[in-house]
Amino acid sequence: MSGRNYVHGYTQREADRLSDQAETLTGLLHSDTRYPAGSRVLEAGCGTGAQTVILAHNSLGARITSVDISEVSLDQARKRVLGEGITNVTFEAGDIFNLRYDPESFDHIFLCFVLEHLAEPRRALERLRPLLREGGTITVIEGDHGSAYFHPDSAYARRAIGCLVDLQWEIGGNALIGRQLYPLVASAGYRGVCVSPRMVYVDASRPDLVEGFTRLTFTAMVEGVGNYVVSRGAMSREDWEQGVRDLHRTCEPDGVFCYTFFKAMGRK
Amino acid sequence: MSGRNYVHGYTQREADRLSDQAETLTGLLHSDTRYPAGSRVLEAGCGTGAQTVILAHNSLGARITSVDISEVSLDQARKRVLGEGITNVTFEAGDIFNLRYDPESFDHIFLCFVLEHLAEPRRALERLRPLLREGGTITVIEGDHGSAYFHPDSAYARRAIGCLVDLQWEIGGNALIGRQLYPLVASAGYRGVCVSPRMVYVDASRPDLVEGFTRLTFTAMVEGVGNYVVSRGAMSREDWEQGVRDLHRTCEPDGVFCYTFFKAMGRK
Repeated sequence: MSGRNYVHGYTQREADRLSDQAETLTGLLHSDTRYPAGSRVLEAGCGTGAQTVILAHNSLGARITSVDISEVSLDQARKRVLGEGITNVTFEAGDIFNLRYDPESFDHIFLCFVLEHLAEPRRALERLRPLLREGGTITVIEGDHGSAYFHPDSAYARRAIGCLVDLQWEIGGNALIGRQLYPLVASAGYRGVCVSPRMVYVDASRPDLVEGFTRLTFTAMVEGVGNYVVSRGAMSREDWEQGVRDLHRTCEPDGVFCYTFFKAMGRK
Repeated sequence: MSGRNYVHGYTQREADRLSDQAETLTGLLHSDTRYPAGSRVLEAGCGTGAQTVILAHNSLGARITSVDISEVSLDQARKRVLGEGITNVTFEAGDIFNLRYDPESFDHIFLCFVLEHLAEPRRALERLRPLLREGGTITVIEGDHGSAYFHPDSAYARRAIGCLVDLQWEIGGNALIGRQLYPLVASAGYRGVCVSPRMVYVDASRPDLVEGFTRLTFTAMVEGVGNYVVSRGAMSREDWEQGVRDLHRTCEPDGVFCYTFFKAMGRK
């Protein structure tokens, strides 16, 4: 994805947010992805490497090739991986629709929070398929902003989230892609597709998730597009701020927040 | 709850729907509720006994007292339990807000799909608490219609579900109560409250759930209030029917349907 078209932008705050999110959600999203020693893994769309370090830690013997179209992101990813002392990852610049690897170069392909940013997610999956050996697996993890609901409920907060969904549509992405993974991966030619939802349920008994997910991940993401949403008149400044306040309100002791990620696995 | 105020009505079709729902969801909702032999269990609001038979099967040695305010429902529940050869359940008519048992009469209290129909769910939990011995548990299971989302998305289907939520509000219930269980049970004076979401994720790889849940449980429930919604002008007949068609559309091979129940456990 290019800098212009990445909905969350490329600021340091965004990098920090991605890092917080990755740490909080590591177990929920990644714990069941372990690739055998010696296996060749392609991470398509590694971004700033937030998922790369988890992937590499969980599969220390695998040979991971992580690609991204953004050199800026790759630089951050390289630094992050170096900082963690990880040695089984090679970074390469490349366009997910046009990767220059030989057919069947990989035993496994992994994509996390990538398809949501693509106008043609199915074509991306189709273009990756030849790179996979027969019997190899593809794993895809995506969120779904339409899966967010909370207590106390708030029409303002729902509208604010709706603006984020609309914005992602306008720049050629899809913030509701999580629920679509089954038909998407199956129609791209993979077989035995299995999707499992990974719901993040947050109430006051889990203060780590209240801070790490509701506040620092989801609400921060919504807040991050506020100026853009208001500047184009999608919501008034007042209504927007009420929506953001209402999201923070769900972090109070009687609040609840729900969000669901989806993880798909298929085979060639 | 009285016949007039039970949103789904008391027809045979409704009884069949409740039965289908109970069978499909048994494992997801009930498998982790097993009461010890000899323990005294109160099922508050047993309705037509759809959950009672599961509860009793899973705790064959427990002595279960199932109460409901509706004699019509109790008759159906008695027949259902007799038909299953279950002998550890006693049925009694009673108002959940005013049950005539001695203090600490029960080791465990169980409520499933009851609070959603009550205007004062917290007061119900407060009124039940004295009946529980010190250290005894309360278990509460509820759905949340605002947790429903699907692919293909449809504004008509979302509006139809919204009408069902509004209708339940108007007759003094709350169709969004699932997400509220943590603050509700905690504020009623129970301690160590733990809520776990039970998400029903349905795609074409699970034809049993496509039929048993998406079509025969959720969509049938929405369809069941159609005449009422249209008669009071909440939606036009045309829009309503489009919404119902769009829910059925999610049962096609490329469709997906998501819904989440919530299960809370607390102690006195």
